[in-house]
Amino acid sequence: MTITELDHTDPEGAIAAAVARCSNWGRWGDDDVRGTLNFIDDAKRAQAGTLIRRGASFGLSLEFSMDGPQKGWRRRTNPVHTMLDTGTDAEAGIQGFPHGLGGADDVVAMPLQCSTQWDGLGHIFDHGRAWNGRRAGEVVTSEGDQVTGIETVADLFVSRGVLLDVGRVCGVDGELPDGFAITVEHLDATIADHGVEIGTGDILLVRTGQLARAKRDGWNDYAGGAAPGLSFTTVDWLHLSRIAAIATDTWGFEVRPNEFDIAFQPLHQVAIPNMGLFLGEMWDLDDLAADCARDGVHEFFLTAAPIPVTGAVGSPVNPIAVK
Amino acid sequence: MTITELDHTDPEGAIAAAVARCSNWGRWGDDDVRGTLNFIDDAKRAQAGTLIRRGASFGLSLEFSMDGPQKGWRRRTNPVHTMLDTGTDAEAGIQGFPHGLGGADDVVAMPLQCSTQWDGLGHIFDHGRAWNGRRAGEVVTSEGDQVTGIETVADLFVSRGVLLDVGRVCGVDGELPDGFAITVEHLDATIADHGVEIGTGDILLVRTGQLARAKRDGWNDYAGGAAPGLSFTTVDWLHLSRIAAIATDTWGFEVRPNEFDIAFQPLHQVAIPNMGLFLGEMWDLDDLAADCARDGVHEFFLTAAPIPVTGAVGSPVNPIAVK
Amino acid sequence: MTITELDHTDPEGAIAAAVARCSNWGRWGDDDVRGTLNFIDDAKRAQAGTLIRRGASFGLSLEFSMDGPQKGWRRRTNPVHTMLDTGTDAEAGIQGFPHGLGGADDVVAMPLQCSTQWDGLGHIFDHGRAWNGRRAGEVVTSEGDQVTGIETVADLFVSRGVLLDVGRVCGVDGELPDGFAITVEHLDATIADHGVEIGTGDILLVRTGQLARAKRDGWNDYAGGAAPGLSFTTVDWLHLSRIAAIATDTWGFEVRPNEFDIAFQPLHQVAIPNMGLFLGEMWDLDDLAADCARDGVHEFFLTAAPIPVTGAVGSPVNPIAVK
Amino acid sequence: MTITELDHTDPEGAIAAAVARCSNWGRWGDDDVRGTLNFIDDAKRAQAGTLIRRGASFGLSLEFSMDGPQKGWRRRTNPVHTMLDTGTDAEAGIQGFPHGLGGADDVVAMPLQCSTQWDGLGHIFDHGRAWNGRRAGEVVTSEGDQVTGIETVADLFVSRGVLLDVGRVCGVDGELPDGFAITVEHLDATIADHGVEIGTGDILLVRTGQLARAKRDGWNDYAGGAAPGLSFTTVDWLHLSRIAAIATDTWGFEVRPNEFDIAFQPLHQVAIPNMGLFLGEMWDLDDLAADCARDGVHEFFLTAAPIPVTGAVGSPVNPIAVK
Repeated sequence: MTITELDHTDPEGAIAAAVARCSNWGRWGDDDVRGTLNFIDDAKRAQAGTLIRRGASFGLSLEFSMDGPQKGWRRRTNPVHTMLDTGTDAEAGIQGFPHGLGGADDVVAMPLQCSTQWDGLGHIFDHGRAWNGRRAGEVVTSEGDQVTGIETVADLFVSRGVLLDVGRVCGVDGELPDGFAITVEHLDATIADHGVEIGTGDILLVRTGQLARAKRDGWNDYAGGAAPGLSFTTVDWLHLSRIAAIATDTWGFEVRPNEFDIAFQPLHQVAIPNMGLFLGEMWDLDDLAADCARDGVHEFFLTAAPIPVTGAVGSPVNPIAVK
Repeated sequence: MTITELDHTDPEGAIAAAVARCSNWGRWGDDDVRGTLNFIDDAKRAQAGTLIRRGASFGLSLEFSMDGPQKGWRRRTNPVHTMLDTGTDAEAGIQGFPHGLGGADDVVAMPLQCSTQWDGLGHIFDHGRAWNGRRAGEVVTSEGDQVTGIETVADLFVSRGVLLDVGRVCGVDGELPDGFAITVEHLDATIADHGVEIGTGDILLVRTGQLARAKRDGWNDYAGGAAPGLSFTTVDWLHLSRIAAIATDTWGFEVRPNEFDIAFQPLHQVAIPNMGLFLGEMWDLDDLAADCARDGVHEFFLTAAPIPVTGAVGSPVNPIAVK
Repeated sequence: MTITELDHTDPEGAIAAAVARCSNWGRWGDDDVRGTLNFIDDAKRAQAGTLIRRGASFGLSLEFSMDGPQKGWRRRTNPVHTMLDTGTDAEAGIQGFPHGLGGADDVVAMPLQCSTQWDGLGHIFDHGRAWNGRRAGEVVTSEGDQVTGIETVADLFVSRGVLLDVGRVCGVDGELPDGFAITVEHLDATIADHGVEIGTGDILLVRTGQLARAKRDGWNDYAGGAAPGLSFTTVDWLHLSRIAAIATDTWGFEVRPNEFDIAFQPLHQVAIPNMGLFLGEMWDLDDLAADCARDGVHEFFLTAAPIPVTGAVGSPVNPIAVK
Repeated sequence: MTITELDHTDPEGAIAAAVARCSNWGRWGDDDVRGTLNFIDDAKRAQAGTLIRRGASFGLSLEFSMDGPQKGWRRRTNPVHTMLDTGTDAEAGIQGFPHGLGGADDVVAMPLQCSTQWDGLGHIFDHGRAWNGRRAGEVVTSEGDQVTGIETVADLFVSRGVLLDVGRVCGVDGELPDGFAITVEHLDATIADHGVEIGTGDILLVRTGQLARAKRDGWNDYAGGAAPGLSFTTVDWLHLSRIAAIATDTWGFEVRPNEFDIAFQPLHQVAIPNMGLFLGEMWDLDDLAADCARDGVHEFFLTAAPIPVTGAVGSPVNPIAVK
C-alpha cells in the first residue's frame, strides 16, 4: 500500500501513482473549498480546548521584516514596510491635528508567502487541475483565486495541535541536516518518543531544526535552497492520518533537493490539488518545542487564522499555541 | 471621580484631566511595551480556555479586499492584491515546472490599518509623547516603531473575550445611529442585559451595528465619517475596568463626530499613549453577536494575533472567538 | 474606403471590417515589436530637431499623486508614495550617518497607467491576438509582456510633434463636451485652422479640453467615465496618416460612451493589436496649447520616453515638447 | 582656491570648507527650488537643439527589473512588477469584455532610486539643512518633499549634454577600477582628448565603465559597494563649471570607498543641499559612448525628464540623447 522504493527517474509516474491512492477529489462534495479542514468539527475544537491547562501562549510566527530570507526568487521579496506618518513628524508639530494629538500610520508591500504562512488550495496545480478537479485557469486568474481564495477558510484553522520534534528525536543537537528526508519511520519514532497520538483533524507541526540553524548562522539559502523536510514517501501516511493541516519550520515543507533526478516540490503536487491538504511553511516552532521538551506535553490548542486577503493563494499567519 | 459633563470647547483640558486620572505611565516599569496586555497572565488564559464548550469557532475579520471602505484619506487605500503566477498561466503550460506541476503566487500592497486591525501603541501620541512617556520621535521614525512595534506583543492577544452588543440592547433593529455616543450607562445596561461580568484582562468587543448597516447599504463614509462609538466620558470606566484591550465594529472606536467642537479622536489620545490600551477597529462581530443572542452566552475564548510586521504601528488581524 | 455610417448594433462587425482595411500585421516583418514607431527614422528626428527655435520647453505630464483621478476601477489606484527616510528624521539626528549628512529616500506603488502614460502594444488584444498576430497568452503572462514589453521601444519616442487643439477649434471656450466624438471632419478642420500638415512619423497630440475641465471642476468620472475623444470612424484616417503615435488629454483616447450599443474601447481593439499604433493618455496639453495659440506654431520637437519597466504593457512618461 | 590635499581624518572640516567656497544658497532668491537648473535658459535649449544633426537617438536608462542591482540596503529593493490582467486570461476568455476585446494591465512597486534616476534636491541634507538653507524637517516629512519635490522641476532637464568618457581616456579597456577617484586632472584630460568645451547649463555625463563591467560580470556590489567616481576634490571644479546637472554610470556618483577614513558620500553633502546641483545615477552611457568614440562628437541634445511623483526626493528617468 505504501511506497517502499522511489524510482528517481520518474517523478511523474510516482506522483500519478500517489494521486491514485490518495486523492480526495469529491470526498466532500463537488463544491468543496475546505479540503482536509473538513476533518475538524465542533467536537474536535471542543476537545482541543481541554488542552489549555497552564495558560501558556506561544506565538509561532517569524517577524515580517526586510531582514527576512527572501532573495527575489520568482519575485518573492521581503516585506517593505514604510511609514505614512511618524513620531518624528508628530514631535516636529507638523501634522495639523488639534489638541496635541499626533499619529503614525504605515503601509506594507509583500508577497503573501514571504514569511510564516499557509499555502492556500489554489497555490499548486497538477497537470492544469486545482483542488477537487477544477481547471486551474478557472480557479486562479489575474484577479486571484475565484473559488478557493484563503478568505473561504479564514476561520477554520482551530484545532488540536501536535508537535513532532523530529529534529530533537532524530537529529544532532536538535537539528536535521539539509537534504534530510523525513520518512514514516522518523515520524513514527518521534511519535513514540513523545508518547503522543495523531488523530483526525489534528494540525501537525513538524520541527526540523533548520530554522534554529538559520537564526544562528544567517538565512543563506533558507528560501528555496537545500533543506530537511518531508519525504515524498510519507504521502500515504499523510493521507491515512486524516490530519487537517501540517506545518514545518522550513521554507518548503518537503525535503530539498527533492528525491527525484529532475523535480520541483512533487509532494506539494499530490498534497495540495489532490488531497486538499493545507501546508504551513516558515513557522517558528523553537520556543514551543523547548517547552514541550521540558514538560513532555506535545499537544495543545492551536489557532492559526490567516489574514483573509480576498482571492489569495497563500496568506500570512501568526499561529498561537496555548498549553 | 468620573466625567459628568464635557466642556465642548476645551478638548485639550478634558484630555489633560483624563490623563491625570487614568495614566498608566510607569505602572509596569520604565521598559514596558505591553501596556494593558499586562493584565493578561497564564491563569487568565487558562480560565479563558474553559469557555470553549461547544467548539464553535467565529472569525471576526473582514476580508482584505479592493472593495473595502478606504477612500484614500491620509493615503489609506484598500489592499491591492496582484498575482505573480496564475492558474491560467499554469494551464497554458508556460511556467517551466517539471512533471506537470503548476503554481500560483501573489503579492499585496496595503496600509496596515486598511481593514480589521489592532492599533499598536506607537499609533497615537499625546503632545509628542508615546506610551509610557517616551518621546514620539524616539519611538516612531521612518524606519518604523523602534520600541513598541507590534512584533513585541504578537503572541499576547489571548484571553477571555466578552461581547457587549450595545447595538442590540440600546439601538433599533440592532443598530445604533451614526453619531451615537456610547456612555457608561449604555455599557452598564448592556452588561446587565447580557448577565455578564467584566474582569481584569478581558478583551472587550463592543458591537454598534454600524458594520451591519454598511454591509447592507454600502460603505459610504464608513472610513472616517460619522459613526456610533465610545463616548469620551467612558475613559474612567475603561481605565478602572482593567481590560486588556477593546475592539469595535467601526472604523475609529470612538463616536464620530467627536464630542468637542474642534477635535480628532480625543479618546485615542488618552487611551493609547497614556493608558497603553490596545484598540481594535473594523472587527466583524455580527455572526458572533447573533450566536450570543441565540444562546445568551456573551463570553468566549479569544485569540487575536496580529501579523508581526517589524516596527508596525498597527497590524492586520483575523481574530478567532471559540465558544 | 472610409466609414460613413456605423451600425451601432454590431461593434464586432465594424471592428472586423476596420481590421481588414487597416491591419499592419507583417508590414515590418514577423519579429516586429515597434509597430508604427517604424515610421520614425533618423531623418525624421533630424528634421524634428530643426523645430527647436526659441528653446521653450513644455512638460506634458500630470503629477503622479494620491490626488489623481483613479477610483479603483480594475484595481487602478492612484500612486501611493511613501518615505523610507525623511528630513524630520535627519533633523532629529537619528539616522546614524557621519559628518552631519542626512538623507531622504522614497518608494512608490502604482498602476503603470494611473497617470500620464503610453499604452504598450501588449495592452489590448483582439480575439486573443496581440500585435502582429501573436497569441495573447504567449505574449503577456503573469510575468509580464515577454515580447513587446515597453522596454523594447524605450528610446524610440522622439519625433516631430503636432498639436491638434480640437477643443479650441471645435469646442466652446476651448472644451469639447463629454461624449463628443471627434470625426475626420473635426480633425481636418483643426488642421486647416492651424495651417499645419501631418506627416509620416509624426506624434499627434489631440487636445479635447476635458482635462482643463477636470482641473477646474474636480476629477469626477475622468477615469473611465464619459469623455470627448476620437470617433471609431477615424480609424482609416489614423491608418492612412502614417503617424507614429497619438496622445490625448483624456483617460481613454476614444469617445466615451463608445459609439456602439454595447462596447468597450473598440478603437483600441483596432489600433493597438492590429495597427500597432501607440496611444498616449492623460497627457496635459494645456500649457503647450496656450503657447501654440499665441504664436500660431503647432509643431515642435517631442520626446516622450517611457520608463522601461521590464515587461510592462504600459508606462509612465513625462513628455517634453520643445519649440 | 581648489583642494590640493585632503585631510582624511576630517571629512566634516573638508565639507565645511567646501561649502564656504561653493554654496549657492540665496544665489537665485529665497524661494528657489531649481538650484543649478537655473543655468539653463531658452537660449541654451535653442543652442542645444542645433546639436541634432544625424537624428540618432540614444536611450540612457537601464531597465527597471526584478533582476536589477538592489539588495535591500536601506530597504531599496528592485522593482516588483505584477500584472492586473494578462494575455493568458484574455485567451482563456474570462475577462468579460465585449466584441472580442482583451486587455492586460500592470502595477509596479519600487523605490524611486532603484534604477536610472535623478536625485532630487530633498534627497540629502547638511547638518539638518536642505537646499537654500531650509530646515530639513520643514522640507521633507512623511508626506514627502513639501518644497523641492521633483514635480517642481519636471520639465527643466532639457539642455546640451556632454559626455566625458573618463573610462575610455583614463582607464584600461574603457573601464576605471573600483575605488578610482576621478580628479580635476582626469576631467581635464578627458575634455582635452574629446576636444569639447563645458559651458554654462550643460548636463555632464561621466562614464566610468563600471556599468559595462557589471553587465559583463554580474551586479555583485554595484549598489552601494566600491566604485570609481568623482573625487571630493572636484567640488570647486563642479561649482565653477556652472553645469546644470551631472550623471554617472555608477550607483553613487562619487568614488567609493569615500576618500575619508569614516565617511558616507561627502560630495553629495556639498553638491545637493549646498550647491543645489542635480545628480543622476545608474545611467547607461555605453551605447552613446561607443557612438561618440566612433564619430568624435561628444556633445548632443539631451532630455532627461523625471516622472513627476508628487513630493518625491528622487525619480526614475529615461534620458534621451539625440545627435
